[in-house]
Amino acid sequence: MSITVAIVAPGEMGSAIGRELRAGGARVLTSLQGRSAASAARVQKEGFEAVADDDALVAQADYLLSVVPPGSAVALAERFAPALARAARKPVYADCNAVSPGTAREIGRILAPSGCPFADGALFGGPTSGKPGIVLYASGPGAAAMTRLAEFGPKVRVMEGPVGAASGMKLSFAGINKGFTALGAFMILAATRAGCTAEVRQMLADTQPALLAYMEKFVPAMFPKAYRWEPEMREIAAYLGSEDPPAGEVFTAIARLYGRLAQDLAAGGQGEIADLARFCGAAVPGTAR
Amino acid sequence: MSITVAIVAPGEMGSAIGRELRAGGARVLTSLQGRSAASAARVQKEGFEAVADDDALVAQADYLLSVVPPGSAVALAERFAPALARAARKPVYADCNAVSPGTAREIGRILAPSGCPFADGALFGGPTSGKPGIVLYASGPGAAAMTRLAEFGPKVRVMEGPVGAASGMKLSFAGINKGFTALGAFMILAATRAGCTAEVRQMLADTQPALLAYMEKFVPAMFPKAYRWEPEMREIAAYLGSEDPPAGEVFTAIARLYGRLAQDLAAGGQGEIADLARFCGAAVPGTAR
Repeated sequence: MSITVAIVAPGEMGSAIGRELRAGGARVLTSLQGRSAASAARVQKEGFEAVADDDALVAQADYLLSVVPPGSAVALAERFAPALARAARKPVYADCNAVSPGTAREIGRILAPSGCPFADGALFGGPTSGKPGIVLYASGPGAAAMTRLAEFGPKVRVMEGPVGAASGMKLSFAGINKGFTALGAFMILAATRAGCTAEVRQMLADTQPALLAYMEKFVPAMFPKAYRWEPEMREIAAYLGSEDPPAGEVFTAIARLYGRLAQDLAAGGQGEIADLARFCGAAVPGTAR
Repeated sequence: MSITVAIVAPGEMGSAIGRELRAGGARVLTSLQGRSAASAARVQKEGFEAVADDDALVAQADYLLSVVPPGSAVALAERFAPALARAARKPVYADCNAVSPGTAREIGRILAPSGCPFADGALFGGPTSGKPGIVLYASGPGAAAMTRLAEFGPKVRVMEGPVGAASGMKLSFAGINKGFTALGAFMILAATRAGCTAEVRQMLADTQPALLAYMEKFVPAMFPKAYRWEPEMREIAAYLGSEDPPAGEVFTAIARLYGRLAQDLAAGGQGEIADLARFCGAAVPGTAR
Protein backbone atom coordinates (compact mmCIF):
# COMPACT_ATOMS: atom_id res chain seq x y z
CA MET A 1 0.00 0.00 0.00
CA SER A 2 1.34 3.34 -0.99
CA ILE A 3 1.58 6.46 1.12
CA THR A 4 0.83 10.10 0.44
CA VAL A 5 3.49 12.61 1.40
CA ALA A 6 2.86 16.33 1.34
CA ILE A 7 5.97 18.46 0.87
CA VAL A 8 5.74 22.15 1.66
CA ALA A 9 7.44 23.94 -0.04
CA PRO A 10 9.47 22.02 -2.60
CA GLY A 11 12.65 24.04 -3.21
CA GLU A 12 15.86 22.26 -4.16
CA MET A 13 15.97 19.93 -1.15
CA GLY A 14 12.20 19.40 -0.97
CA SER A 15 12.11 18.50 -4.66
CA ALA A 16 14.95 16.02 -4.19
CA ILE A 17 13.23 14.13 -1.40
CA GLY A 18 9.91 14.26 -3.28
CA ARG A 19 11.62 12.81 -6.35
CA GLU A 20 13.09 9.99 -4.30
CA LEU A 21 9.71 9.18 -2.73
CA ARG A 22 7.93 9.27 -6.09
CA ALA A 23 10.52 7.00 -7.64
CA GLY A 24 9.87 4.60 -4.75
CA GLY A 25 6.13 4.57 -5.44
CA ALA A 26 4.83 7.18 -3.00
CA ARG A 27 2.30 9.80 -3.99
CA VAL A 28 3.70 13.31 -3.51
CA LEU A 29 1.41 16.26 -2.91
CA THR A 30 2.09 19.90 -2.53
CA SER A 31 0.07 23.02 -2.00
CA LEU A 32 0.26 25.94 -4.40
CA GLN A 33 -1.34 28.30 -1.90
CA GLY A 34 0.67 31.53 -1.99
CA ARG A 35 3.27 30.13 -4.41
CA SER A 36 4.61 31.69 -7.60
CA ALA A 37 3.99 30.54 -11.18
CA ALA A 38 7.62 29.31 -11.26
CA SER A 39 6.92 27.07 -8.26
CA ALA A 40 3.80 25.73 -9.95
CA ALA A 41 5.81 24.88 -13.06
CA ARG A 42 8.48 23.16 -10.98
CA VAL A 43 5.89 21.12 -9.13
CA GLN A 44 4.34 20.02 -12.41
CA LYS A 45 7.70 19.12 -13.90
CA GLU A 46 8.50 16.92 -10.91
CA GLY A 47 5.17 15.13 -11.24
CA PHE A 48 3.99 16.20 -7.80
CA GLU A 49 0.23 16.66 -7.41
CA ALA A 50 -0.79 20.19 -6.54
CA VAL A 51 -3.85 20.73 -4.37
CA ALA A 52 -5.76 23.96 -4.08
CA ASP A 53 -5.49 24.72 -0.38
CA ASP A 54 -4.00 23.57 2.90
CA ASP A 55 -7.15 21.79 4.14
CA ALA A 56 -7.21 19.61 1.03
CA LEU A 57 -3.50 18.86 1.48
CA VAL A 58 -3.86 17.88 5.13
CA ALA A 59 -6.95 15.74 4.40
CA GLN A 60 -5.06 13.55 1.90
CA ALA A 61 -1.57 13.39 3.47
CA ASP A 62 -0.14 10.63 5.65
CA TYR A 63 2.98 12.73 6.19
CA LEU A 64 3.55 16.46 5.97
CA LEU A 65 7.22 17.39 5.51
CA SER A 66 8.28 20.97 6.13
CA VAL A 67 11.32 21.65 3.93
CA VAL A 68 11.84 25.42 3.88
CA PRO A 69 14.61 27.93 4.62
CA PRO A 70 15.33 27.81 8.38
CA GLY A 71 13.82 31.26 8.95
CA SER A 72 10.42 30.12 7.59
CA ALA A 73 10.00 26.93 9.63
CA VAL A 74 8.01 28.47 12.51
CA ALA A 75 5.72 30.41 10.16
CA LEU A 76 4.93 27.23 8.23
CA ALA A 77 3.90 25.44 11.42
CA GLU A 78 1.72 28.40 12.38
CA ARG A 79 0.12 28.36 8.94
CA PHE A 80 -0.74 24.65 9.10
CA ALA A 81 -1.77 24.40 12.75
CA PRO A 82 -5.43 25.41 12.11
CA ALA A 83 -5.89 23.02 9.16
CA LEU A 84 -4.26 20.22 11.17
CA ALA A 85 -6.59 20.96 14.11
CA ARG A 86 -9.63 20.78 11.79
CA ALA A 87 -8.57 17.51 10.14
CA ALA A 88 -10.34 14.31 11.16
CA ARG A 89 -7.31 12.15 10.29
CA LYS A 90 -3.96 13.61 11.44
CA PRO A 91 -0.84 13.26 9.30
CA VAL A 92 2.61 13.11 10.92
CA TYR A 93 4.15 16.59 10.73
CA ALA A 94 7.94 16.46 10.33
CA ASP A 95 10.00 19.63 10.50
CA CYS A 96 12.99 18.75 8.30
CA ASN A 97 14.76 22.11 8.44
CA ALA A 98 18.20 23.15 9.72
CA VAL A 99 16.76 24.88 12.79
CA SER A 100 18.05 24.87 16.35
CA PRO A 101 16.71 22.39 18.93
CA GLY A 102 14.94 25.32 20.61
CA THR A 103 13.14 26.22 17.38
CA ALA A 104 12.18 22.56 16.88
CA ARG A 105 10.67 22.51 20.38
CA GLU A 106 8.81 25.74 19.62
CA ILE A 107 7.34 24.16 16.49
CA GLY A 108 6.31 21.17 18.59
CA ARG A 109 4.47 23.51 20.98
CA ILE A 110 2.71 25.29 18.09
CA LEU A 111 1.46 21.98 16.69
CA ALA A 112 0.57 20.29 19.99
CA PRO A 113 -3.04 21.64 20.13
CA SER A 114 -3.72 20.18 16.65
CA GLY A 115 -3.23 16.67 17.99
CA CYS A 116 -0.97 15.55 15.12
CA PRO A 117 2.17 13.52 15.85
CA PHE A 118 5.26 15.70 15.52
CA ALA A 119 8.74 14.61 14.44
CA ASP A 120 11.90 16.67 14.58
CA GLY A 121 13.71 15.80 11.36
CA ALA A 122 17.11 16.42 9.81
CA LEU A 123 18.00 15.77 6.19
CA PHE A 124 21.51 14.73 5.10
CA GLY A 125 22.82 14.12 1.60
CA GLY A 126 20.89 15.19 -1.46
CA PRO A 127 21.50 18.06 -3.86
CA THR A 128 23.69 20.34 -1.70
CA SER A 129 26.01 17.55 -0.56
CA GLY A 130 26.87 16.20 -4.00
CA LYS A 131 26.10 12.71 -2.70
CA PRO A 132 23.24 10.58 -3.98
CA GLY A 133 20.59 9.39 -1.58
CA ILE A 134 18.92 11.23 1.25
CA VAL A 135 19.10 10.21 4.90
CA LEU A 136 16.37 11.47 7.20
CA TYR A 137 17.04 11.47 10.94
CA ALA A 138 13.97 11.83 13.15
CA SER A 139 13.39 12.26 16.86
CA GLY A 140 10.41 12.95 19.10
CA PRO A 141 6.89 11.45 19.38
CA GLY A 142 6.28 11.21 15.60
CA ALA A 143 9.71 9.74 14.79
CA ALA A 144 8.84 6.04 14.87
CA ALA A 145 6.11 6.56 12.27
CA MET A 146 8.72 8.04 9.89
CA THR A 147 10.29 4.61 9.33
CA ARG A 148 7.59 3.83 6.75
CA LEU A 149 9.10 6.43 4.43
CA ALA A 150 12.13 4.15 4.12
CA GLU A 151 10.03 1.67 2.10
CA PHE A 152 9.78 4.37 -0.57
CA GLY A 153 13.40 5.43 -0.96
CA PRO A 154 15.02 7.69 1.62
CA LYS A 155 17.02 6.11 4.42
CA VAL A 156 15.36 6.85 7.77
CA ARG A 157 17.13 6.77 11.14
CA VAL A 158 14.97 7.04 14.22
CA MET A 159 16.75 8.64 17.17
CA GLU A 160 15.95 7.86 20.78
CA GLY A 161 16.20 11.49 21.89
CA PRO A 162 13.28 13.93 22.20
CA VAL A 163 12.27 16.74 19.83
CA GLY A 164 15.51 18.72 19.40
CA ALA A 165 17.81 15.70 19.06
CA ALA A 166 17.58 15.54 15.25
CA SER A 167 17.98 19.31 14.89
CA GLY A 168 20.87 19.28 17.35
CA MET A 169 22.53 16.56 15.33
CA LYS A 170 22.12 18.47 12.08
CA LEU A 171 23.68 21.61 13.55
CA SER A 172 26.42 19.75 15.48
CA PHE A 173 27.51 17.90 12.38
CA ALA A 174 27.35 21.01 10.21
CA GLY A 175 29.29 22.90 12.88
CA ILE A 176 32.08 20.33 12.94
CA ASN A 177 32.51 20.26 9.17
CA LYS A 178 32.01 23.91 8.41
CA GLY A 179 33.82 25.03 11.56
CA PHE A 180 36.93 22.95 10.84
CA THR A 181 36.94 24.27 7.29
CA ALA A 182 36.73 27.86 8.56
CA LEU A 183 39.47 27.35 11.12
CA GLY A 184 41.71 25.90 8.45
CA ALA A 185 41.01 28.95 6.27
CA PHE A 186 41.73 31.39 9.13
CA MET A 187 45.10 29.76 9.79
CA ILE A 188 46.10 29.46 6.13
CA LEU A 189 45.41 33.18 5.78
CA ALA A 190 47.48 33.92 8.92
CA ALA A 191 50.37 31.84 7.59
CA THR A 192 50.11 33.62 4.24
CA ARG A 193 50.34 37.03 5.92
CA ALA A 194 53.33 35.83 8.00
CA GLY A 195 55.12 34.44 4.92
CA CYS A 196 55.39 30.88 6.24
CA THR A 197 52.96 28.82 4.15
CA ALA A 198 55.63 26.43 2.84
CA GLU A 199 56.82 25.59 6.35
CA VAL A 200 53.33 25.23 7.83
CA ARG A 201 52.39 22.90 4.98
CA GLN A 202 55.54 20.84 5.51
CA MET A 203 55.04 20.60 9.27
CA LEU A 204 51.42 19.54 8.77
CA ALA A 205 52.53 16.95 6.24
CA ASP A 206 55.09 15.62 8.73
CA THR A 207 52.97 15.62 11.87
CA GLN A 208 49.26 15.95 10.95
CA PRO A 209 48.81 14.60 7.43
CA ALA A 210 45.10 13.91 7.98
CA LEU A 211 44.47 17.56 8.86
CA LEU A 212 46.38 18.75 5.83
CA ALA A 213 44.42 16.40 3.58
CA TYR A 214 41.18 17.63 5.15
CA MET A 215 42.09 21.27 4.53
CA GLU A 216 43.26 20.65 0.96
CA LYS A 217 39.97 18.98 0.12
CA PHE A 218 37.37 20.97 2.04
CA VAL A 219 38.72 24.53 2.00
CA PRO A 220 38.54 24.91 -1.82
CA ALA A 221 35.21 23.01 -1.91
CA MET A 222 33.84 25.71 0.41
CA PHE A 223 34.44 28.67 -1.94
CA PRO A 224 31.17 28.43 -3.93
CA LYS A 225 29.19 27.56 -0.78
CA ALA A 226 30.49 30.37 1.45
CA TYR A 227 27.55 32.66 0.62
CA ARG A 228 25.14 29.97 1.80
CA TRP A 229 27.17 28.99 4.85
CA GLU A 230 27.28 32.54 6.20
CA PRO A 231 23.60 32.55 7.35
CA GLU A 232 23.85 28.89 8.39
CA MET A 233 26.77 29.75 10.70
CA ARG A 234 24.69 32.56 12.19
CA GLU A 235 21.93 30.02 12.89
CA ILE A 236 24.48 27.76 14.63
CA ALA A 237 25.86 30.77 16.52
CA ALA A 238 22.38 31.65 17.82
CA TYR A 239 21.77 28.06 18.85
CA LEU A 240 25.13 27.48 20.53
CA GLY A 241 25.40 30.97 21.99
CA SER A 242 22.27 30.57 24.10
CA GLU A 243 23.83 27.56 25.84
CA ASP A 244 27.59 28.24 25.53
CA PRO A 245 28.45 31.90 24.80
CA PRO A 246 32.06 31.32 23.64
CA ALA A 247 30.87 28.70 21.13
CA GLY A 248 28.38 31.26 19.82
CA GLU A 249 31.19 33.80 19.41
CA VAL A 250 33.26 31.29 17.44
CA PHE A 251 30.46 30.74 14.92
CA THR A 252 29.61 34.44 14.66
CA ALA A 253 33.23 35.05 13.68
CA ILE A 254 33.11 32.12 11.25
CA ALA A 255 29.98 33.59 9.64
CA ARG A 256 31.90 36.83 9.09
CA LEU A 257 34.76 34.91 7.45
CA TYR A 258 32.38 33.11 5.09
CA GLY A 259 30.66 36.40 4.25
CA ARG A 260 34.02 37.98 3.44
CA LEU A 261 35.12 35.04 1.30
CA ALA A 262 31.79 35.03 -0.56
CA GLN A 263 32.33 38.71 -1.39
CA ASP A 264 35.90 38.02 -2.53
CA LEU A 265 34.70 35.19 -4.78
CA ALA A 266 31.92 37.35 -6.23
CA ALA A 267 34.55 40.00 -7.02
CA GLY A 268 36.71 37.48 -8.91
CA GLY A 269 38.43 35.64 -6.06
CA GLN A 270 41.80 37.34 -6.44
CA GLY A 271 42.24 38.14 -2.74
CA GLU A 272 41.95 35.70 0.14
CA ILE A 273 40.30 33.08 -2.08
CA ALA A 274 43.45 33.01 -4.22
CA ASP A 275 45.66 32.69 -1.10
CA LEU A 276 43.59 29.76 0.13
CA ALA A 277 43.57 28.08 -3.28
CA ARG A 278 47.36 28.37 -3.54
CA PHE A 279 47.93 26.79 -0.13
CA CYS A 280 45.58 23.93 -0.99
CA GLY A 281 47.07 23.33 -4.43
CA ALA A 282 43.69 24.16 -5.96
CA ALA A 283 42.95 26.24 -9.03
CA VAL A 284 42.95 29.99 -8.40
CA PRO A 285 39.80 31.47 -9.97
CA GLY A 286 40.51 32.98 -13.38
CA THR A 287 43.94 31.37 -13.87
CA ALA A 288 45.24 28.16 -15.34
CA ARG A 289 46.16 25.78 -12.56
CA MET B 1 85.69 23.39 16.92
CA SER B 2 83.02 23.77 19.54
CA ILE B 3 80.63 26.64 20.03
CA THR B 4 79.40 28.48 23.10
CA VAL B 5 75.66 28.95 23.46
CA ALA B 6 74.15 31.18 26.11
CA ILE B 7 70.59 30.25 27.13
CA VAL B 8 68.57 32.80 29.08
CA ALA B 9 66.67 31.68 31.11
CA PRO B 10 66.70 27.89 31.16
CA GLY B 11 63.21 26.78 32.20
CA GLU B 12 61.81 23.47 30.97
CA MET B 13 62.27 24.18 27.27
CA GLY B 14 65.53 26.11 27.65
CA SER B 15 67.01 23.28 29.71
CA ALA B 16 65.95 20.74 27.09
CA ILE B 17 67.68 22.55 24.24
CA GLY B 18 70.74 23.21 26.41
CA ARG B 19 70.91 19.51 27.25
CA GLU B 20 70.77 18.58 23.59
CA LEU B 21 73.52 21.05 22.71
CA ARG B 22 75.75 19.88 25.58
CA ALA B 23 75.27 16.25 24.60
CA GLY B 24 76.39 17.28 21.11
CA GLY B 25 79.58 18.86 22.45
CA ALA B 26 78.61 22.53 22.72
CA ARG B 27 79.47 24.64 25.74
CA VAL B 28 76.29 25.97 27.37
CA LEU B 29 76.40 29.14 29.43
CA THR B 30 73.76 30.91 31.40
CA SER B 31 73.58 34.00 33.55
CA LEU B 32 72.43 33.84 37.14
CA GLN B 33 71.80 37.58 37.27
CA GLY B 34 68.45 38.08 38.99
CA ARG B 35 67.72 34.34 39.22
CA SER B 36 66.60 32.33 42.23
CA ALA B 37 68.62 29.73 44.16
CA ALA B 38 66.39 27.05 42.60
CA SER B 39 67.42 28.22 39.14
CA ALA B 40 71.07 28.15 40.16
CA ALA B 41 70.68 24.55 41.37
CA ARG B 42 68.93 23.55 38.13
CA VAL B 43 71.68 25.13 36.05
CA GLN B 44 74.34 23.26 38.02
CA LYS B 45 72.47 19.96 37.72
CA GLU B 46 72.28 20.35 33.95
CA GLY B 47 76.01 21.04 33.78
CA PHE B 48 75.54 24.50 32.31
CA GLU B 49 78.20 27.07 33.21
CA ALA B 50 76.89 30.03 35.14
CA VAL B 51 78.54 33.40 34.64
CA ALA B 52 78.26 36.33 37.01
CA ASP B 53 76.72 39.00 34.80
CA ASP B 54 75.34 39.72 31.37
CA ASP B 55 78.55 41.36 30.01
CA ALA B 56 80.54 38.22 30.80
CA LEU B 57 77.85 36.09 29.16
CA VAL B 58 77.78 38.16 25.98
CA ALA B 59 81.59 38.27 25.80
CA GLN B 60 81.89 34.47 25.69
CA ALA B 61 78.80 33.51 23.69
CA ASP B 62 78.61 32.71 19.98
CA TYR B 63 74.82 32.44 20.26
CA LEU B 64 72.39 33.90 22.73
CA LEU B 65 69.05 32.07 22.84
CA SER B 66 66.09 33.74 24.53
CA VAL B 67 63.81 30.97 25.84
CA VAL B 68 61.37 32.58 28.25
CA PRO B 69 57.59 32.84 28.75
CA PRO B 70 56.17 34.85 25.82
CA GLY B 71 55.35 37.84 28.03
CA SER B 72 59.04 38.23 29.03
CA ALA B 73 60.61 38.17 25.56
CA VAL B 74 60.68 41.94 24.98
CA ALA B 75 62.03 42.67 28.46
CA LEU B 76 64.87 40.20 27.91
CA ALA B 77 65.89 41.93 24.70
CA GLU B 78 65.79 45.29 26.46
CA ARG B 79 67.95 43.89 29.26
CA PHE B 80 70.61 42.56 26.90
CA ALA B 81 70.66 45.40 24.35
CA PRO B 82 73.23 47.53 26.33
CA ALA B 83 75.62 44.60 26.96
CA LEU B 84 75.36 43.57 23.30
CA ALA B 85 76.09 47.15 22.22
CA ARG B 86 79.20 47.20 24.45
CA ALA B 87 80.53 43.86 23.23
CA ALA B 88 83.45 43.85 20.80
CA ARG B 89 82.40 40.50 19.28
CA LYS B 90 78.65 40.17 18.67
CA PRO B 91 76.85 36.86 19.25
CA VAL B 92 73.76 35.95 17.21
CA TYR B 93 70.67 36.77 19.29
CA ALA B 94 67.80 34.35 18.63
CA ASP B 95 64.37 34.95 20.11
CA CYS B 96 62.98 31.41 20.42
CA ASN B 97 59.71 32.26 22.12
CA ALA B 98 56.07 31.76 21.12
CA VAL B 99 55.53 35.44 20.40
CA SER B 100 53.63 37.09 17.57
CA PRO B 101 55.43 38.22 14.39
CA GLY B 102 54.85 41.81 15.53
CA THR B 103 56.60 41.15 18.84
CA ALA B 104 59.48 39.46 17.01
CA ARG B 105 59.87 42.55 14.82
CA GLU B 106 59.78 44.76 17.93
CA ILE B 107 62.59 42.70 19.45
CA GLY B 108 64.54 43.10 16.21
CA ARG B 109 64.16 46.87 16.46
CA ILE B 110 65.29 46.87 20.09
CA LEU B 111 68.45 44.94 19.20
CA ALA B 112 69.28 46.73 15.94
CA PRO B 113 71.40 49.50 17.57
CA SER B 114 73.60 46.84 19.24
CA GLY B 115 74.78 45.63 15.84
CA CYS B 116 74.29 41.94 16.64
CA PRO B 117 72.69 39.62 14.05
CA PHE B 118 69.09 38.83 15.03
CA ALA B 119 67.15 35.66 14.28
CA ASP B 120 63.46 35.06 14.82
CA GLY B 121 63.27 31.50 16.12
CA ALA B 122 60.57 28.94 16.86
CA LEU B 123 61.10 25.73 18.79
CA PHE B 124 59.12 22.56 18.07
CA GLY B 125 59.26 19.23 19.86
CA GLY B 126 60.97 18.83 23.20
CA PRO B 127 59.50 18.39 26.67
CA THR B 128 55.98 19.77 26.13
CA SER B 129 55.34 17.82 22.93
CA GLY B 130 56.23 14.40 24.26
CA LYS B 131 58.43 13.90 21.21
CA PRO B 132 62.20 13.53 21.37
CA GLY B 133 64.39 15.93 19.50
CA ILE B 134 64.04 19.64 19.09
CA VAL B 135 63.57 21.41 15.78
CA LEU B 136 64.51 25.08 15.61
CA TYR B 137 63.06 27.18 12.80
CA ALA B 138 64.78 30.50 12.17
CA SER B 139 64.12 33.48 9.92
CA GLY B 140 65.58 36.94 9.49
CA PRO B 141 69.13 38.28 9.11
CA GLY B 142 70.70 36.02 11.78
CA ALA B 143 68.95 32.84 10.59
CA ALA B 144 71.64 31.47 8.27
CA ALA B 145 74.19 31.52 11.11
CA MET B 146 71.89 29.29 13.18
CA THR B 147 72.63 26.29 10.95
CA ARG B 148 75.84 25.67 12.90
CA LEU B 149 73.78 24.67 15.94
CA ALA B 150 72.66 21.62 13.95
CA GLU B 151 76.19 20.17 14.22
CA PHE B 152 75.58 19.94 17.98
CA GLY B 153 72.19 18.24 18.10
CA PRO B 154 69.04 20.21 17.39
CA LYS B 155 67.60 20.14 13.90
CA VAL B 156 67.70 23.62 12.38
CA ARG B 157 65.49 24.82 9.53
CA VAL B 158 66.33 28.18 7.99
CA MET B 159 63.32 29.97 6.56
CA GLU B 160 63.51 32.38 3.65
CA GLY B 161 61.06 34.85 5.19
CA PRO B 162 62.01 37.90 7.26
CA VAL B 163 61.86 38.33 11.04
CA GLY B 164 58.29 37.28 11.92
CA ALA B 165 58.15 34.25 9.63
CA ALA B 166 59.35 31.79 12.29
CA SER B 167 57.07 33.28 14.95
CA GLY B 168 54.17 33.29 12.51
CA MET B 169 54.78 29.65 11.77
CA LYS B 170 54.87 28.71 15.44
CA LEU B 171 51.55 30.44 16.11
CA SER B 172 49.90 29.28 12.87
CA PHE B 173 50.77 25.68 13.58
CA ALA B 174 49.74 25.93 17.24
CA GLY B 175 46.50 27.62 16.13
CA ILE B 176 45.62 24.81 13.73
CA ASN B 177 46.23 22.04 16.25
CA LYS B 178 44.83 23.68 19.34
CA GLY B 179 42.01 25.38 17.41
CA PHE B 180 40.80 22.14 15.80
CA THR B 181 40.92 20.46 19.19
CA ALA B 182 38.84 23.26 20.73
CA LEU B 183 36.30 23.22 17.92
CA GLY B 184 35.92 19.48 18.32
CA ALA B 185 35.33 19.99 22.05
CA PHE B 186 32.76 22.75 21.48
CA MET B 187 30.77 20.54 19.13
CA ILE B 188 30.99 17.40 21.28
CA LEU B 189 29.61 19.45 24.16
CA ALA B 190 26.81 20.81 21.95
CA ALA B 191 25.90 17.28 20.81
CA THR B 192 25.94 16.11 24.42
CA ARG B 193 23.51 18.86 25.43
CA ALA B 194 21.26 18.01 22.45
CA GLY B 195 21.29 14.28 23.27
CA CYS B 196 22.70 13.18 19.92
CA THR B 197 26.28 12.05 20.61
CA ALA B 198 25.75 8.52 19.31
CA GLU B 199 24.39 9.76 15.99
CA VAL B 200 27.05 12.45 15.54
CA ARG B 201 29.76 9.87 16.23
CA GLN B 202 28.20 7.46 13.75
CA MET B 203 27.85 10.11 11.05
CA LEU B 204 31.47 11.19 11.55
CA ALA B 205 32.58 7.57 11.36
CA ASP B 206 30.64 7.15 8.10
CA THR B 207 31.59 10.40 6.38
CA GLN B 208 34.63 11.97 8.15
CA PRO B 209 36.56 9.17 9.83
CA ALA B 210 39.80 11.18 9.87
CA LEU B 211 38.13 13.99 11.82
CA LEU B 212 36.64 11.54 14.30
CA ALA B 213 40.03 9.90 14.80
CA TYR B 214 41.62 13.32 15.29
CA MET B 215 39.06 14.29 17.93
CA GLU B 216 39.29 10.97 19.77
CA LYS B 217 43.06 11.34 20.03
CA PHE B 218 43.61 15.04 20.62
CA VAL B 219 40.59 16.11 22.68
CA PRO B 220 41.45 13.87 25.68
CA ALA B 221 45.18 14.64 25.29
CA MET B 222 44.28 18.31 25.77
CA PHE B 223 42.74 17.94 29.25
CA PRO B 224 45.98 18.27 31.26
CA LYS B 225 47.31 21.00 28.94
CA ALA B 226 44.21 23.21 28.90
CA TYR B 227 45.53 25.45 31.73
CA ARG B 228 48.65 26.15 29.67
CA TRP B 229 46.82 26.56 26.37
CA GLU B 230 44.49 29.22 27.75
CA PRO B 231 47.17 32.00 27.83
CA GLU B 232 48.70 30.67 24.60
CA MET B 233 45.34 31.06 22.84
CA ARG B 234 45.13 34.63 24.15
CA GLU B 235 48.57 35.28 22.61
CA ILE B 236 47.31 33.89 19.29
CA ALA B 237 44.12 35.94 19.61
CA ALA B 238 46.14 39.14 20.11
CA TYR B 239 48.33 38.29 17.13
CA LEU B 240 45.53 37.31 14.76
CA GLY B 241 43.09 39.94 16.00
CA SER B 242 45.33 42.81 14.98
CA GLU B 243 45.28 41.58 11.37
CA ASP B 244 41.96 39.70 11.14
CA PRO B 245 39.45 40.63 13.88
CA PRO B 246 37.13 37.60 13.47
CA ALA B 247 40.10 35.24 13.78
CA GLY B 248 41.04 37.02 16.99
CA GLU B 249 37.49 36.52 18.31
CA VAL B 250 37.66 32.81 17.54
CA PHE B 251 40.81 32.37 19.62
CA THR B 252 39.56 34.56 22.47
CA ALA B 253 36.54 32.26 22.70
CA ILE B 254 38.81 29.20 22.50
CA ALA B 255 40.92 30.59 25.38
CA ARG B 256 37.73 30.84 27.44
CA LEU B 257 36.87 27.22 26.65
CA TYR B 258 40.32 26.01 27.70
CA GLY B 259 40.14 28.08 30.89
CA ARG B 260 36.76 26.54 31.72
CA LEU B 261 37.97 22.99 31.01
CA ALA B 262 41.10 23.55 33.12
CA GLN B 263 38.87 24.60 36.01
CA ASP B 264 36.64 21.56 35.53
CA LEU B 265 39.68 19.25 35.52
CA ALA B 266 41.09 20.90 38.65
CA ALA B 267 37.72 20.32 40.34
CA GLY B 268 37.79 16.61 39.48
CA GLY B 269 36.73 16.60 35.85
CA GLN B 270 33.17 15.40 36.44
CA GLY B 271 31.51 18.05 34.24
CA GLU B 272 32.37 18.86 30.65
CA ILE B 273 35.66 16.94 30.87
CA ALA B 274 33.66 13.78 31.59
CA ASP B 275 31.32 14.48 28.65
CA LEU B 276 34.27 14.92 26.31
CA ALA B 277 36.01 11.79 27.61
CA ARG B 278 32.86 9.73 27.08
CA PHE B 279 32.44 10.87 23.48
CA CYS B 280 36.09 10.09 22.75
CA GLY B 281 36.03 6.69 24.43
CA ALA B 282 38.68 7.92 26.87
CA ALA B 283 38.88 7.38 30.62
CA VAL B 284 36.69 9.72 32.66
CA PRO B 285 38.82 11.14 35.51
CA GLY B 286 38.26 9.27 38.76
CA THR B 287 36.47 6.27 37.22
CA ALA B 288 37.55 2.95 35.81
CA ARG B 289 37.44 3.10 32.04
